[in-house]
Amino acid sequence: MNKDIKCAVVGATGYSGVELLRLLSGHPHATVATVTSRAEAGRKVAELFPNLHAIDLEFESPEHADLNACDLVFFATPNGTAMHSAPALLDAGAKVIDLAADFRLTDVDVWQRWYGMEHACPDHIENAVYGLPEMNREQIKDASLVANPGCYVTAVTLGLLPLLRAGMIDETTIIADAKSGVSGAGRGANVGSLYSEVSENFKAYKVPGHRHLPEISQNLSQIAGHSVDLTFVPHLLPQIRGIHATLYAKISRPTELQTLFTECYEDEPFVQILPSGSHPETRATRGTNVCQIAPHQPQSGDTAVVLSVIDNLTKGAAGQAVQNMNLMFGLTEETGLQKIALMP
Amino acid sequence: MNKDIKCAVVGATGYSGVELLRLLSGHPHATVATVTSRAEAGRKVAELFPNLHAIDLEFESPEHADLNACDLVFFATPNGTAMHSAPALLDAGAKVIDLAADFRLTDVDVWQRWYGMEHACPDHIENAVYGLPEMNREQIKDASLVANPGCYVTAVTLGLLPLLRAGMIDETTIIADAKSGVSGAGRGANVGSLYSEVSENFKAYKVPGHRHLPEISQNLSQIAGHSVDLTFVPHLLPQIRGIHATLYAKISRPTELQTLFTECYEDEPFVQILPSGSHPETRATRGTNVCQIAPHQPQSGDTAVVLSVIDNLTKGAAGQAVQNMNLMFGLTEETGLQKIALMP
Amino acid sequence: MNKDIKCAVVGATGYSGVELLRLLSGHPHATVATVTSRAEAGRKVAELFPNLHAIDLEFESPEHADLNACDLVFFATPNGTAMHSAPALLDAGAKVIDLAADFRLTDVDVWQRWYGMEHACPDHIENAVYGLPEMNREQIKDASLVANPGCYVTAVTLGLLPLLRAGMIDETTIIADAKSGVSGAGRGANVGSLYSEVSENFKAYKVPGHRHLPEISQNLSQIAGHSVDLTFVPHLLPQIRGIHATLYAKISRPTELQTLFTECYEDEPFVQILPSGSHPETRATRGTNVCQIAPHQPQSGDTAVVLSVIDNLTKGAAGQAVQNMNLMFGLTEETGLQKIALMP
Amino acid sequence: MNKDIKCAVVGATGYSGVELLRLLSGHPHATVATVTSRAEAGRKVAELFPNLHAIDLEFESPEHADLNACDLVFFATPNGTAMHSAPALLDAGAKVIDLAADFRLTDVDVWQRWYGMEHACPDHIENAVYGLPEMNREQIKDASLVANPGCYVTAVTLGLLPLLRAGMIDETTIIADAKSGVSGAGRGANVGSLYSEVSENFKAYKVPGHRHLPEISQNLSQIAGHSVDLTFVPHLLPQIRGIHATLYAKISRPTELQTLFTECYEDEPFVQILPSGSHPETRATRGTNVCQIAPHQPQSGDTAVVLSVIDNLTKGAAGQAVQNMNLMFGLTEETGLQKIALMP
Repeated sequence: MNKDIKCAVVGATGYSGVELLRLLSGHPHATVATVTSRAEAGRKVAELFPNLHAIDLEFESPEHADLNACDLVFFATPNGTAMHSAPALLDAGAKVIDLAADFRLTDVDVWQRWYGMEHACPDHIENAVYGLPEMNREQIKDASLVANPGCYVTAVTLGLLPLLRAGMIDETTIIADAKSGVSGAGRGANVGSLYSEVSENFKAYKVPGHRHLPEISQNLSQIAGHSVDLTFVPHLLPQIRGIHATLYAKISRPTELQTLFTECYEDEPFVQILPSGSHPETRATRGTNVCQIAPHQPQSGDTAVVLSVIDNLTKGAAGQAVQNMNLMFGLTEETGLQKIALMP
Repeated sequence: MNKDIKCAVVGATGYSGVELLRLLSGHPHATVATVTSRAEAGRKVAELFPNLHAIDLEFESPEHADLNACDLVFFATPNGTAMHSAPALLDAGAKVIDLAADFRLTDVDVWQRWYGMEHACPDHIENAVYGLPEMNREQIKDASLVANPGCYVTAVTLGLLPLLRAGMIDETTIIADAKSGVSGAGRGANVGSLYSEVSENFKAYKVPGHRHLPEISQNLSQIAGHSVDLTFVPHLLPQIRGIHATLYAKISRPTELQTLFTECYEDEPFVQILPSGSHPETRATRGTNVCQIAPHQPQSGDTAVVLSVIDNLTKGAAGQAVQNMNLMFGLTEETGLQKIALMP
Repeated sequence: MNKDIKCAVVGATGYSGVELLRLLSGHPHATVATVTSRAEAGRKVAELFPNLHAIDLEFESPEHADLNACDLVFFATPNGTAMHSAPALLDAGAKVIDLAADFRLTDVDVWQRWYGMEHACPDHIENAVYGLPEMNREQIKDASLVANPGCYVTAVTLGLLPLLRAGMIDETTIIADAKSGVSGAGRGANVGSLYSEVSENFKAYKVPGHRHLPEISQNLSQIAGHSVDLTFVPHLLPQIRGIHATLYAKISRPTELQTLFTECYEDEPFVQILPSGSHPETRATRGTNVCQIAPHQPQSGDTAVVLSVIDNLTKGAAGQAVQNMNLMFGLTEETGLQKIALMP
Repeated sequence: MNKDIKCAVVGATGYSGVELLRLLSGHPHATVATVTSRAEAGRKVAELFPNLHAIDLEFESPEHADLNACDLVFFATPNGTAMHSAPALLDAGAKVIDLAADFRLTDVDVWQRWYGMEHACPDHIENAVYGLPEMNREQIKDASLVANPGCYVTAVTLGLLPLLRAGMIDETTIIADAKSGVSGAGRGANVGSLYSEVSENFKAYKVPGHRHLPEISQNLSQIAGHSVDLTFVPHLLPQIRGIHATLYAKISRPTELQTLFTECYEDEPFVQILPSGSHPETRATRGTNVCQIAPHQPQSGDTAVVLSVIDNLTKGAAGQAVQNMNLMFGLTEETGLQKIALMP
């Protein structure tokens, strides 16, 4: 197999980064040419991540890496990093996928308010394509700059999309009660992510406002064709990977949910509607790019309940980034992406 | 200290039973005289539960145990067990606390539909007092037969009670998204509760209908003074203990939530309203009889979000049973019940 | 890719079975033609294991499955099952790999004592090849009946093999302190494997004698060329997958350990000797067929300490079975077997 | 109850510190007068540790706290802290218990080599009493300065003590294979202690040499009356609390182990010898000051295997400190210390 997409991963020491390295190292048409990390420059990748025993690369300082020579640069960096480097890379002819939030919100003021910093290249925001293939497949194919969606956002948007497209719910009643594994908080050393703090414990966080709220609203509004808001409550699960979104809305125009969801996603390679009455489990998507969904209408009442699960590091980050890469480079969308999870 | 309440624990090998033994063995005014278990008759308690090294009792077969000689009989048995023995014990002058569901629902038809069996002593249902002290304290003091509440029900009811009493929410919009540790499923050997099935996994279950739904509705209706329904979605957490209820309702008559909750519970020994903006954690209540609650109104919008946590085996089962015992026998409500959790 | 080995998996509902289905469904030259389960006959595989969404097979009753028509039959059944069916299958021309213990011990009396039953086909024991490729690669290539090794046995044997071959240790001082994830206890519903019993807990078990002890001794004796015994203490880890063997022996003839181990395994595709001073982690082998080993000589003293890790369900069961299949059918040994673990 | 010992806890934000606060707040004869933390000065204790809702104290900066006014100062600080403050406190008439390592090793050169710093008050080392009551009860009663033992050290020493006292083992063959929950690594924010790094993973660490090695040797040598060395291999368990030591030694003079251990510890309030053939579990000691031990002699061979478990934060740290406090202040040794663990 010829490996033809020359890739760089900037910020490859975080959890999205190592997941990306895992996926790219098994991808038949991609080669990881460069991995950068300021903190770990000079260290072998396999030393830090012993599962990547087969990757014979050292972390390079981002200043010294020849990113311009790559076909595609992934930014698996904190928010506010890619926006400083992307313009020059795009000018040099490279394509860019940012796994962080820099190019996700179309309204720069909203972005600046939620992310608490000034945007370094607001002119590029309108050129960025929001990388949720189930919404924007065609635009992604032609994109040079892709804003990879947030993890919560992916699970919530895919679960609500059929309801909104069908115009069957009261849009003032949408609630997203979402639960995430702790890897979503990253590989940074902070007390709140310690094993002794997380294990055998569960809590909500950022109920007053989480940065993924405006991103979800933006997606729902785009789907509905007008402004849609929601209540979004994130929770921290005592597990490494997995997001489970439990979505609620009042039904305004009754529709058979199972049929609606099945038909909506029948051509999607990575969205699986489970048999009627199912309860998806996060582990069934672990390490895969799959989103599993089951819609319910308890007691045949007037409330729709949609259960939507993904792996936050895969479909919620690195897997979706590879899916976007495949689209951007004309490959079959499923190339190099697993659908079978390790279980148990 | 004189130990004056002679207690029996029927079905002491389940998780509610062993939690009850732990609490009673540290209680200054209760003595465990008899523990029964059909399956483990003849075995020492400490052999099965090495934490109870100090308890020098053997499990007895329920047929041979002299339950009538006890002041109080706890049933930590499966649903449908206590209803067969309670009438004779009450006639013999013993008091009874059933930790299962036999006497929780006042409408016997509803009970029979949800529990799938005929009730063995429907005449006793109206004499049973529903053992949630925060709702029925005075009646519990005089009761001979107490129906100890369900675990989910306790967390959800305590979280919604102030809102309903204040008449400030649209009662057609109530949602309870609840998450429970797996000990709630009991100590029975079933595949779904295996470590390899539960760890690093999260899912909803019984979305079409869970038995705690009619019990919650009954409580909410009693509080409101008229019929109130809700959407209730339980989930299984990868942890042993803890329930977290995330409660949602549209605000119809705005009220300052923090003040409302603080005042509502200021005299309650086991309900703690956390400082404004808090996110309660299940672990902070582990092994204690405490319920911690934090109300929120995200973005000052029209939706109230209440976070309510308990330990399902303590305030959600055995601890609440001891709290009820204290009330029934004229003791200070807090006797023998811890408020400080093991953490981490 | 043509799929040319027609496989059956007998007892496919256990954890070794589902791991085998995961591996075979991704194998370029194997097709799963039949999966059997007495308990689940008629149910779809994907209903029981939602990760195997892509496998469109139903469990068949073993009586009705046409196993003879298969090229290879895997037994992922309890001990004492394969011995009843293997002879007829071998006569019919199928090859057999037993993931259980029926054909592992060459001494039928020892087998009968440890497994507590009479052996159904003692004549076939001598025809069975013990399927540890690192010991018996050439014999496996020609075998019709392969006894797949025990999980603990694989980790312990691979860790001690270089020391024994080099004749550098006092063979009366060997200790194997081994720790296993709970999936090793299988998918059977028993109280000891419940999440609430296993999580946040650690213990040894079967210290007086575990069935893998005679199997380890048999391997060590074969390597040494004379009878070798050891002390073997297994422990239960609060995790799903992974075995860590910590191996001790007094050094009788000092040798540079790192060089010894590296050279011993330099041609082995699935044994990785980590850099000097390393501490292998079970997670780095999760879901892979890899064994990672690091030898130590603390404080340059007279005790060798070898750390050896595998995934008990992969290199310790299903992965090794596929490795054996590859050898038996003339394929490259690594076909269809991953080396990159999901991490974190 | 009158509370008469006025205590200070220095460094109360670590895991040993919060465990100490939990125990002291339930102790009938101790009052926590002062808690210090440089980083959290001014914050309420209950804000950081919501389980300590009942403690109405703020963290003070150590400089401003009036430690001299206390009867007893606990140092729950990193190694190398207490040695700077202890002399002045002792001069002022306070007693001191150091939960860290500053006064544990009698040989200051050995201490300086293993801890990598110069000792600030070497003259005080000989006045310090090593606070393992099962070895040094009488000296502790009269001590002003107690060096609270290391967690591994406690489990290993208590497990080997009867064997060494009886002179029944070959002292050149001692191996301690020890496993600890991650709370032993403290509440410091480091990547290796993150949930995503620890969960579902197991590994050895510091095989070349861990600081508890010389401390164990010192204890074993004191018990034996001559120098004794051992091989010590620590491992990291995916759980919060609990240490399990698996101890091995060749038997040189056969003795009935169960009787030996039972008699050795029959008067000890916190050491429980389990029935013959038992396998102690870490969870049965969780949150208690208990050490549970079971000796084995597998296959009646020449190797003794001793299983010894404690809670690293309780008997391995804060609980043992309270036990020492009780001895130093003439209280019953068990005052305020639990023996019944939360289980499950």
